[in-house]
Amino acid sequence: MPDVAVLGASGYAGAIAATLLHRHPYFKLSHVTARSESGAMLEAIHPRTRVPLLLEDYDPAVQGDADAALVCWPHGVAAPAVAALRERGVRVVDLSADFRLRDRATYDHWYGRHGAPELFGAGVYGLPELYREAIAASDLVANPGCYPTAALLGLAPLARAGVIEDVVIDAKSGVSGAGREPSRTTHFIAADENMTPYKVEGHRHTPEIEQELAVLGASRPISFTPHLVPLAQGELVSCYVTASRTLTDSELADLYREAYEDERWVELALGPPGVLEVRDTNYCRISVHVDGRTGRVLVFSSIDNLWKGAASQAVQNLNLMFGRDESEGLT
Amino acid sequence: MPDVAVLGASGYAGAIAATLLHRHPYFKLSHVTARSESGAMLEAIHPRTRVPLLLEDYDPAVQGDADAALVCWPHGVAAPAVAALRERGVRVVDLSADFRLRDRATYDHWYGRHGAPELFGAGVYGLPELYREAIAASDLVANPGCYPTAALLGLAPLARAGVIEDVVIDAKSGVSGAGREPSRTTHFIAADENMTPYKVEGHRHTPEIEQELAVLGASRPISFTPHLVPLAQGELVSCYVTASRTLTDSELADLYREAYEDERWVELALGPPGVLEVRDTNYCRISVHVDGRTGRVLVFSSIDNLWKGAASQAVQNLNLMFGRDESEGLT
Amino acid sequence: MPDVAVLGASGYAGAIAATLLHRHPYFKLSHVTARSESGAMLEAIHPRTRVPLLLEDYDPAVQGDADAALVCWPHGVAAPAVAALRERGVRVVDLSADFRLRDRATYDHWYGRHGAPELFGAGVYGLPELYREAIAASDLVANPGCYPTAALLGLAPLARAGVIEDVVIDAKSGVSGAGREPSRTTHFIAADENMTPYKVEGHRHTPEIEQELAVLGASRPISFTPHLVPLAQGELVSCYVTASRTLTDSELADLYREAYEDERWVELALGPPGVLEVRDTNYCRISVHVDGRTGRVLVFSSIDNLWKGAASQAVQNLNLMFGRDESEGLT
Amino acid sequence: MPDVAVLGASGYAGAIAATLLHRHPYFKLSHVTARSESGAMLEAIHPRTRVPLLLEDYDPAVQGDADAALVCWPHGVAAPAVAALRERGVRVVDLSADFRLRDRATYDHWYGRHGAPELFGAGVYGLPELYREAIAASDLVANPGCYPTAALLGLAPLARAGVIEDVVIDAKSGVSGAGREPSRTTHFIAADENMTPYKVEGHRHTPEIEQELAVLGASRPISFTPHLVPLAQGELVSCYVTASRTLTDSELADLYREAYEDERWVELALGPPGVLEVRDTNYCRISVHVDGRTGRVLVFSSIDNLWKGAASQAVQNLNLMFGRDESEGLT
Repeated sequence: MPDVAVLGASGYAGAIAATLLHRHPYFKLSHVTARSESGAMLEAIHPRTRVPLLLEDYDPAVQGDADAALVCWPHGVAAPAVAALRERGVRVVDLSADFRLRDRATYDHWYGRHGAPELFGAGVYGLPELYREAIAASDLVANPGCYPTAALLGLAPLARAGVIEDVVIDAKSGVSGAGREPSRTTHFIAADENMTPYKVEGHRHTPEIEQELAVLGASRPISFTPHLVPLAQGELVSCYVTASRTLTDSELADLYREAYEDERWVELALGPPGVLEVRDTNYCRISVHVDGRTGRVLVFSSIDNLWKGAASQAVQNLNLMFGRDESEGLT
Repeated sequence: MPDVAVLGASGYAGAIAATLLHRHPYFKLSHVTARSESGAMLEAIHPRTRVPLLLEDYDPAVQGDADAALVCWPHGVAAPAVAALRERGVRVVDLSADFRLRDRATYDHWYGRHGAPELFGAGVYGLPELYREAIAASDLVANPGCYPTAALLGLAPLARAGVIEDVVIDAKSGVSGAGREPSRTTHFIAADENMTPYKVEGHRHTPEIEQELAVLGASRPISFTPHLVPLAQGELVSCYVTASRTLTDSELADLYREAYEDERWVELALGPPGVLEVRDTNYCRISVHVDGRTGRVLVFSSIDNLWKGAASQAVQNLNLMFGRDESEGLT
Repeated sequence: MPDVAVLGASGYAGAIAATLLHRHPYFKLSHVTARSESGAMLEAIHPRTRVPLLLEDYDPAVQGDADAALVCWPHGVAAPAVAALRERGVRVVDLSADFRLRDRATYDHWYGRHGAPELFGAGVYGLPELYREAIAASDLVANPGCYPTAALLGLAPLARAGVIEDVVIDAKSGVSGAGREPSRTTHFIAADENMTPYKVEGHRHTPEIEQELAVLGASRPISFTPHLVPLAQGELVSCYVTASRTLTDSELADLYREAYEDERWVELALGPPGVLEVRDTNYCRISVHVDGRTGRVLVFSSIDNLWKGAASQAVQNLNLMFGRDESEGLT
Repeated sequence: MPDVAVLGASGYAGAIAATLLHRHPYFKLSHVTARSESGAMLEAIHPRTRVPLLLEDYDPAVQGDADAALVCWPHGVAAPAVAALRERGVRVVDLSADFRLRDRATYDHWYGRHGAPELFGAGVYGLPELYREAIAASDLVANPGCYPTAALLGLAPLARAGVIEDVVIDAKSGVSGAGREPSRTTHFIAADENMTPYKVEGHRHTPEIEQELAVLGASRPISFTPHLVPLAQGELVSCYVTASRTLTDSELADLYREAYEDERWVELALGPPGVLEVRDTNYCRISVHVDGRTGRVLVFSSIDNLWKGAASQAVQNLNLMFGRDESEGLT
């Protein structure tokens, strides 16, 4: 039973990752860390985890004895911790953005100085449905951002078919996406009965989506705008695709069926997917339609931002890295 | 003091219209009707109205003694009632879609048989910020749909400037937009913590938006997709505009300032507008941005779907039709 | 692997029961029924179940081949179905009120004519923490009401200690407690941002709580008033107990620790329990306090009304009836 | 037109008070202050106010030129500001707890050192329905707490009739009651889909309710426990009264009708009152019932905690203090 540490277990994604690993039939959750709440039991901070482990301070000499680690820290501070753990031979799934991008200038532009430049670009992009083999062979996996997960699973079949001329992505997320730190934005009174676009001048997930779309075959800049909606967990990505040639509904349906019929965690829905249908699961649920009037292809893709968009996808990646069934502990 | 009747006062928009007219300094609310709940007091059905009037059955001989009527009925059934009231000389603001479209074939395609063909096209499109004079001169005003109100106020300056090459509209609405009839969709358990695209195959507000955009100078088909979000009242329209020429932020700001600086009910926001900021008001709140990476113009426009998107805009129109200050009773 | 049928799987509790049994390591979900939605797949009606079984019409000759059944029907109609299944030797957990009460006149007063009088009183009251052995020995278990589950687990230690002189129970429930049928009450617009007492003239769970409190040693009539609050699942019961003698906080703590320290599904919380902490679980979470100023004992008890208050408790009972670990399939 | 200052206009109650005064036909809003956000426009901080006034630092020499002030500050710091304003002859409605209690030891026990001991007890308790004349004659009014407002209006007729033997108050409040400062408790993710009792060891509104009940004729200690529920504004108080003699429903109805038939802002409801019915209003809505089984009297009383529970009641008091119709500016 490999030991796994979760760094940053007091955040939302970290707490769910810890819960999944605590119940996991193969892995053993051996360490949980928190910056400001160390010394408390995880289940005292997050009762729903029911994980009776003490939150430790981060210390690579301590958590470095684990076989693997999920790093649930913000970008910038994640990279040095990842580097320290990798030095000790710990296999890492990093949930920050630090190892997702492959172009250094792009990283610097959107995120600033990288915290472990020697490792920059060393991670495999951890979207199992697209890069399963590379993930299985890797010791450092960069878990995708929540919006990129939903967007890329939604758009991959079109991108691979080479038909994406242009795409507008209008994304909507529940409030957990803004993190656990209390703020004006996450105050109940600010979020309740409200919805607002945010980061309209540019969101950091934009270059990540573009990078991966380019790999898949669609290299045009995209428009991506996220919105905050009054619910806890759930993310819906509405993609408006201008196609380079006319597509029929049945052609589209075939394209997506072929892409995903063997995928355990991608569901093709007949009607537009709601986020409640994937709440607390590792599923991504997708529907695709041709807008008969404009010829645009509409793709709707929903996930739970804390699960498939973060914690459960990290466990899915960890399963792959250890040669296990990727769904173990997720059902 | 002109007498005003509200037909369909048991619906959400009708109840708010009745409330506004009941407190109005100039008009006198003389009749309220309801189909299945007649005989009850309006305030017993909708306590928040605090309107102690008996809900009557619809009878043109009864409500036809009013000087004006707000018809808050669904399309199809609204038209014959409007016709009957007009015959008796009653000035009408119709909140249904029956008099909004000007092309008969388009109406038939989206709505079916018209209930008063002789009056088809006789209404003035009731968006005061665009058609103030025509409204003031009219006896039959077609109150705009909620999504068209937000979309058209958001896009009008660009359309008039002739720079709209293409536009994708991603719209989000609270649950009151689905009406007061209990249904699977409006059940709390279905809507709470959920969000879903709907009518992805085509929503009836599409031709209405296209018709009015064409009048303003933008005649291309649009992509319009609405989404249901878990809040009561509020509508946000996110418009992704491909412009026919490069626009700067300051050019855009000027365009919108010129268009709206004298408009009492349109607010230009520095940041993206939330729907809470316009809740229970007649305001439309707009922000506009250039997406530097793609050159697209992003327009966000928020209203309260039951107020500016229905009831308060109807009263604004009624004020104009009677030569009053259009803001009377709305502040 | 015993076959289990879920009657009424299209309701909220039935759908969760079906989900739990579908994933259960021991039982096999063999039938799901629905009255008006038969012919559809359960997962089409309730995507979150991910149960790919066809909803059948109820037919005792069909579902009667199962080894056990969970009957998730309303009172009145449940009893005859239970009788028909029992005749075929099917072991039954009935989630309705039909077999909970032991006094026929009380049943008639609160529920009307019983649908299978010959079986009246034949059920064992299915609160495992109180009646584990009797449940294990029974073929017909009456699954408790949601409020009684929370109230009785909260009050049992005090009742058994013989110190309850009087008790006021103020209960709060999420909207799923009102069932899946769309209605004025369950409409999003009626429930959202609202809370209301209901059934203030008397709620049917009152005699059920009184019956079981009397068994435990507290036989005074109680005051019980439920309230509807704007959330999906979760129930909080606040009990204000006038004690027959002075109790200290440490005495109370001992009493509850002794009662529940070996109970897997009862958690004693240091602070007052929230409903989110037990969401989607079989847990009941309790805190107990002495009000120093009045001497009253305050007991707060929270459950998920659809889980411990219905579906998961039914599976817990089923486990016991088949000699399994009562927690199997619930973790 | 008397000038009025609002101290603490960046809080929820202060912002609403400023809005009401800004639109008030008689008063002129001359100053708004904020501690950490001075220098900004109030409408930039709280767009819904649409008050284009600059938030000032508190300075008694500046705001002391007003004729009246609403002090929307926390207890402790409010008292010295009130004293400074009173010295300059400013008439004050204080929304803190500093001038509500009349027993110094009780104040010290619950709140700590008083910030202006020389003024302790100098305020009139500002519940207009109970103390209209004294308020009109006073220059310093202590605006009641939100829970006491709902509880006292609900219980006053019974207390005056001398029939209250004992009372349990179970109170529920929306999240705005917890104030505008971001915290773990007010984070959307903590409050959404949750409800929790709080301050079970004793809430500061308890002595306030007891003090005023004693004045009215009921001098026994009460049990009072508040709960947090997931909505923005609204407070429901459920009172379980043990009466000293048997009361009939019609006797009760008469008692309440006599007490409130001439009160503009108290509504007697036939069924149990929801908080949505009083949202954004100065109304208190009450229903009263006899529990036939126990003889207890059940009183349900709902208000908007920010309006009748704070800001609009403060304006109601201000109207009285200046000899105006107490409803001016509130309709």
